[in-house]
Amino acid sequence: MSSRLFSFIADRDGPWAITSQATLVGEPLPLAAGLRLVAGAVPAERHPWVLRGITSHERYVEREEKQALVARQQGLGRSASTCAALIPIRKSAAWWALTQDERRQVFEAQSHHIGIGMNYLPAIARRLHHCRDLSEHEPFDFLTWFEYDPSSESDFDRMLAELRATPEWQYVDREVDIRLTLRAG
Amino acid sequence: MSSRLFSFIADRDGPWAITSQATLVGEPLPLAAGLRLVAGAVPAERHPWVLRGITSHERYVEREEKQALVARQQGLGRSASTCAALIPIRKSAAWWALTQDERRQVFEAQSHHIGIGMNYLPAIARRLHHCRDLSEHEPFDFLTWFEYDPSSESDFDRMLAELRATPEWQYVDREVDIRLTLRAG
Repeated sequence: MSSRLFSFIADRDGPWAITSQATLVGEPLPLAAGLRLVAGAVPAERHPWVLRGITSHERYVEREEKQALVARQQGLGRSASTCAALIPIRKSAAWWALTQDERRQVFEAQSHHIGIGMNYLPAIARRLHHCRDLSEHEPFDFLTWFEYDPSSESDFDRMLAELRATPEWQYVDREVDIRLTLRAG
Repeated sequence: MSSRLFSFIADRDGPWAITSQATLVGEPLPLAAGLRLVAGAVPAERHPWVLRGITSHERYVEREEKQALVARQQGLGRSASTCAALIPIRKSAAWWALTQDERRQVFEAQSHHIGIGMNYLPAIARRLHHCRDLSEHEPFDFLTWFEYDPSSESDFDRMLAELRATPEWQYVDREVDIRLTLRAG
């Protein structure tokens, strides 16, 4: 059985070098020089931080959208994907108090979250990890991990700018933007 | 901050006496004589079993349904609620592979899950706990805890029979039905 739980470990010697770490809203994370991504849980001791998330079923995507996504998206680990981003996000209590139809309304009808992401496929590969229900007091609700070719960095920045301008992002109360490059060897 | 995580502990000396424990589908749980419900996590050692679940945002309920539910439902802990049921459920991989619109279609349009539950308010009080995203290998996806007056037991049985006859229940691949009464003192 493949792992659904992943740990993002701030680790100076990790295979990914952290090239920038910017806090957009909310409390920052301690700065770190490197990152290691492992399947499963690890103890947080000895590391500046460890963020955990679990892949899960889709919460908003509908069947036609899923078919379009599956047809276009590519997986992680492509050899040309030497750039990555880890974007931990927390949404406000107001978001979680919305009902399913209201969240879908903000997410797609108003904010075109799926549609925006679709425009950047297959260049930007992505894996979403849920944290909110791992325990009572997780520091973030979602961890999204992106991988792309260095030539796609400006496209990636444009995609984030589009998403951050949406009504959905008014519900984001903590967001850190961590950029990484794969170390040689 | 109130706890979202709850542990259901098989404990001979717990305040709830287990009066019946029936496995409807899938692997049984070891039999136990009593149950203790505590906020937060506890180690599983020394207990026949401990089931953990976390209360979370609603996954299917829409605004009008929520307003109707809130208007009718009552909380746990009513003094006349000396009967309880703990019903752990797991749904199949086929369920989790459905998209949000497909799950909502089965859940409410085909199965009237919310509508059936509404008919038994306020007599049956209920709290739903999610387990699926607590870790990779939880034994169940949901734990529902019900409390009611002894005179409502036949209504409770009828409600379960209605739910178990729905298309949604074809996706249930593990279900245990545990009935309890509050011990005096």
